[in-house]
Amino acid sequence: MLHFRFNISRIWLIVKAPSFTSPLVPRFLVSAASLVTNRFVNSIATLASLTFSYAAIADIDVYPPNWWVGMEKPTVELMLHGDGVANYSASINATDVTVVDSKRLDSENYLFVTLNTDSAEAGRVVISLIAPDGSSHDIDYALNARRQHSQSRVGFGPKDAIYLIAPDRFANGDESNDSVDGYKDRLNRDNKGGRHGGDIQGIIDNLDYIADMGFTQIWSMPLLENAMDSYSYHGYSTTDYYKIDPRYGSNSQYQKLSEKASEHGVGLIMDMVLNHIGSGHAWVQDKPSKDWLNNQGVFVGTTHKRESLHDPHAIQSDIKAFSDGWFVPSMPDLNQRNPHLATYLIQNAIWWVEFANLSGIRVDTYSYSDKGFLSEWTTRLMQEYPNLNIVGEEWSVNPAITAYWQAGSHRHDDYVSALPSVMDFSLQHAVADGLTSKEGWDTGLTSIYETLATDFLYGEPNNLVIFADNHDMSRVYSQVDEDINRWDMAMTFYLTARGIPQVFYGTEILMSNPNTEDHGIIRSDFLGGWKSDTKNAFTGKGLSDDERWAQSRIKQLLSLRQNYPAVFEGSFKHYAPVDGVYAYARQANAKNPPSIQGDKDTNDTDEKKVNSKSPVILVILNKNEKASTVDMNKYNMVTNGKKNMTRLKDDKEFASSETVTLAPMSANVFIVK
Amino acid sequence: MLHFRFNISRIWLIVKAPSFTSPLVPRFLVSAASLVTNRFVNSIATLASLTFSYAAIADIDVYPPNWWVGMEKPTVELMLHGDGVANYSASINATDVTVVDSKRLDSENYLFVTLNTDSAEAGRVVISLIAPDGSSHDIDYALNARRQHSQSRVGFGPKDAIYLIAPDRFANGDESNDSVDGYKDRLNRDNKGGRHGGDIQGIIDNLDYIADMGFTQIWSMPLLENAMDSYSYHGYSTTDYYKIDPRYGSNSQYQKLSEKASEHGVGLIMDMVLNHIGSGHAWVQDKPSKDWLNNQGVFVGTTHKRESLHDPHAIQSDIKAFSDGWFVPSMPDLNQRNPHLATYLIQNAIWWVEFANLSGIRVDTYSYSDKGFLSEWTTRLMQEYPNLNIVGEEWSVNPAITAYWQAGSHRHDDYVSALPSVMDFSLQHAVADGLTSKEGWDTGLTSIYETLATDFLYGEPNNLVIFADNHDMSRVYSQVDEDINRWDMAMTFYLTARGIPQVFYGTEILMSNPNTEDHGIIRSDFLGGWKSDTKNAFTGKGLSDDERWAQSRIKQLLSLRQNYPAVFEGSFKHYAPVDGVYAYARQANAKNPPSIQGDKDTNDTDEKKVNSKSPVILVILNKNEKASTVDMNKYNMVTNGKKNMTRLKDDKEFASSETVTLAPMSANVFIVK
Repeated sequence: MLHFRFNISRIWLIVKAPSFTSPLVPRFLVSAASLVTNRFVNSIATLASLTFSYAAIADIDVYPPNWWVGMEKPTVELMLHGDGVANYSASINATDVTVVDSKRLDSENYLFVTLNTDSAEAGRVVISLIAPDGSSHDIDYALNARRQHSQSRVGFGPKDAIYLIAPDRFANGDESNDSVDGYKDRLNRDNKGGRHGGDIQGIIDNLDYIADMGFTQIWSMPLLENAMDSYSYHGYSTTDYYKIDPRYGSNSQYQKLSEKASEHGVGLIMDMVLNHIGSGHAWVQDKPSKDWLNNQGVFVGTTHKRESLHDPHAIQSDIKAFSDGWFVPSMPDLNQRNPHLATYLIQNAIWWVEFANLSGIRVDTYSYSDKGFLSEWTTRLMQEYPNLNIVGEEWSVNPAITAYWQAGSHRHDDYVSALPSVMDFSLQHAVADGLTSKEGWDTGLTSIYETLATDFLYGEPNNLVIFADNHDMSRVYSQVDEDINRWDMAMTFYLTARGIPQVFYGTEILMSNPNTEDHGIIRSDFLGGWKSDTKNAFTGKGLSDDERWAQSRIKQLLSLRQNYPAVFEGSFKHYAPVDGVYAYARQANAKNPPSIQGDKDTNDTDEKKVNSKSPVILVILNKNEKASTVDMNKYNMVTNGKKNMTRLKDDKEFASSETVTLAPMSANVFIVK
Repeated sequence: MLHFRFNISRIWLIVKAPSFTSPLVPRFLVSAASLVTNRFVNSIATLASLTFSYAAIADIDVYPPNWWVGMEKPTVELMLHGDGVANYSASINATDVTVVDSKRLDSENYLFVTLNTDSAEAGRVVISLIAPDGSSHDIDYALNARRQHSQSRVGFGPKDAIYLIAPDRFANGDESNDSVDGYKDRLNRDNKGGRHGGDIQGIIDNLDYIADMGFTQIWSMPLLENAMDSYSYHGYSTTDYYKIDPRYGSNSQYQKLSEKASEHGVGLIMDMVLNHIGSGHAWVQDKPSKDWLNNQGVFVGTTHKRESLHDPHAIQSDIKAFSDGWFVPSMPDLNQRNPHLATYLIQNAIWWVEFANLSGIRVDTYSYSDKGFLSEWTTRLMQEYPNLNIVGEEWSVNPAITAYWQAGSHRHDDYVSALPSVMDFSLQHAVADGLTSKEGWDTGLTSIYETLATDFLYGEPNNLVIFADNHDMSRVYSQVDEDINRWDMAMTFYLTARGIPQVFYGTEILMSNPNTEDHGIIRSDFLGGWKSDTKNAFTGKGLSDDERWAQSRIKQLLSLRQNYPAVFEGSFKHYAPVDGVYAYARQANAKNPPSIQGDKDTNDTDEKKVNSKSPVILVILNKNEKASTVDMNKYNMVTNGKKNMTRLKDDKEFASSETVTLAPMSANVFIVK
């Protein structure tokens, strides 16, 4: 159990913010010299650069290190951490910012000070702390102006495609931070569970590649500090919720990534861990309250039985065993029922959205956190950012379980969830199974069909994040036994089906994990990310024909998405599989769709709900080992009178009335106009 | 395509009704001589015997052949069938019964006459038909008085156990009807798909056995006329909705079965087929309307893709292909969207409930019928009998699909279903899989646990019908590879889990279907049902030790249910399986349970919802190949302070605080007091 403290968090940090390229985003200029005044930043959109500051005095840390004015919720609760700070009294000498509450818990080293910023203008306030001995300590605290349109930012969505990166394994853009003094887990590329040197600079350096491939969002595994003795590269053992791990870069470099990505038309999704921390976090040695960690801070493993949360027959002890249990001894489990911890986590998420101008959040091990807290966390986030997207990881193949968390789902109880999206593990399982099992009346492609048919459980199926693989499971090329045709069917499906596709880095070059499920192999180093690499996926150098073909196929499919964003935001209609052939169509929604009735008898009015002038993307998967012929008239209900079909793979043209031969084991995408 | 007509349906049938044993049931006496009067039966509860009559004149058949006064819905629509009857005009010369509508469809051989019985007293009315040539035909029609408490009858429920019988294969009580002239499919015991001679008399003869075993309900596969050339024994090819097949007996014998079963404390559940008829039905040669049969009366196979009904992405043609498709060419599919057919089927179901004093209905191939019709059919039945039970067969292992049909389920749309129960195929699949697969984090007993945990999808999980096997699948002893310990775990589970258990005849003597899934083998003849049988399960003669043990085990478990009916109607709580051991408890509900909140945090208030004075049935399945020890203190939350435990199998006593050794692969039932 280690706890690192760095002077860097106790001195003023003046970090130049990225200059946002959007003409809609205002720029603020903050003079470092004017720090001496209490008020100096006005929310005037003509200032030239945004500056933020970490606030701290002497040996007191303040979280969040700054806040913003004009938030939906006007109060912010600061956690002050320092020796004996709980015995201090706090006040502000200002008219527009007030201390509305000041509270200590069990530890004398934490003080929770709530500010009301309701009528505040952007600028700085001085929080005065009076010690029991009468001495006074001032905390200079920044209340910044927000980016214009920060609240109304639009998160990632069905028109997007997400690139999932394991940052330690993607590209080493800065060798100077491969090992950092004070951090025990140092560079060791020979250790599959060790740090390999990839970093934020590596992602920035390769934004051209990412954007050129056609990805419009980046989800990186967590970049926050993981000051753990070993096995820290995965990032899920947070030791500081407000600090990028220096082996990945810095907070400002993360801002830069966001800015540069934005210049490439790429949004940034932050991976957040609400359920647990790393054992190196300060809270482990010095708990703010006795109930801060679950099971009194002692390791008791979770049962992973998420079903218990919903189970009408559950024993309360099973619910507790799931929710309060820890993943591993090195990941103490947070008790978010503590309202101050809940507020801390809510504010931390908002802070990163504002600070790094995020387009969305991915929440790790979603359901393992307290259920009531998740309701509050999602509700608060969506109050601040009504159009943000947040996707929760609920690893269950039962869509009734995953759908429970999505906003708008029809729940059996009165639970409130504002979570817009969940990861579609059910579909991942069905596709892996469907593409590798024999065709039968309830196997093969029918598994995929049946899973999608159960979408009635979800509040918004088209806002689910869909994926063939991720950092926690076998790579898709291994899932399909390194059969490139099945890989093509899988990836074509994911890049054209309903939902928001996520592609794991390296899947585009057929990275695999033969004969092992070891995470260190699954998260192997991307080709070309290290100077010594002889093969380079960024340039194509040394790639095999198959790797090159796969990369170009992904690019082709992503290009399709970018050419027809409205289509992928629109309707999905599928035909029940027949004889190993499965077909579905995408079409843009009507501009003014008629109200949709619950009765499925209205399903034949497809043409009323879709934009009939929009092109149709018709996808036909042929899972037979031999060629199949398909009379395209079968699909009249979706081609909707359009005559000309162009196949994406070979640009071959067909009439929508002809009989087409589909190659064995092939994924056929037709653009119908 | 055969259509049989028998004079028997065209002449007066005066059938003496069973004398009901319940002191609550009144008896009516009807004098055959008084048939000449229009009114002679008053709804006075002192008359001694109930009589009903088939109404018909000359060559006109009337359906339903009689009706009752005092029904919730006062109108009844008669289907008159006879040459040219559509051209007749109908009237009634009475003050309390009126003809409110008279309508023909496409065929001139059907007339639909609607009577209003709102102010009618029990008795007979004469319906006068005037032919186009001016000639008059009188139909003498009986409007009977109902049994007392007919409307408030309580259907089968969680305190019951159902015995499912294939009537042709259970016992041959009357050899005189083994073959019947006019019916082509004659006795042939050498043909596994042929008729073997079992009949209603065979069931009546063995009611002692059924009741003594502990069954409280009989569900027989359909007994209605199946006048098909061959393969008629299964009963699902109805050729007359108002007539028991003479090879099984007669309508009066079915009434007698109901009466005699009732004397044994056993209820009668009728198997009804709404989706299709047999090709020998009169409607096939002479359709009342062009739209009476789906797909214009021409065979088009159903896709069996029931998902399409719910699928938000479904193509309308897939919905139609499922719902309007036929099972097989010999089973024309009914179009229940025709309102006259819908009414016919609704009235037919009500007629049998009244006529045979049913305790419930099992509906075959439930979702294949028109969805809107099913809403109407269930709503009408439950309006007439608010406490009846009806179970629908929806063969899907996805509980989200099956739950959709159950009343009270939380649906994604505004569909209305009044169906109280569905068959729990999901659980059947999970148990078969769970008892035969290796234990793993998401396999083995966890499959069972996870399936029950998904019960939040159902309107009322404890009203599901649960079963290890039925007439359409491999027998459970074959499912578990003829391992008697696994069979014991399965059957112990089903006879103690939440829901209403159904046991397939012969399962109690380990009947099996080795190396085949042939329905004729699955539905083999019960031992002792035929005079020539050398082994006899009714007497025990010739049974092997295993068969005898199995039979006694089922009897023991059923006896437990009868001794603690409130427990089995009550709460079910289970513990997540750990190390191959799965435990759950049953307890009677509190007399005045507190209101149950949606929030699962209230789950720890189990003791508030249950009757704490009630004994607890604690079941522990040990699926390990070796003995396991269990500290009973683990189950304190359900044993709830009770000290003494008696194991059902060996009457051994334990303290609820001790550590108990469970035999390898064993099902342990403890009565805790």
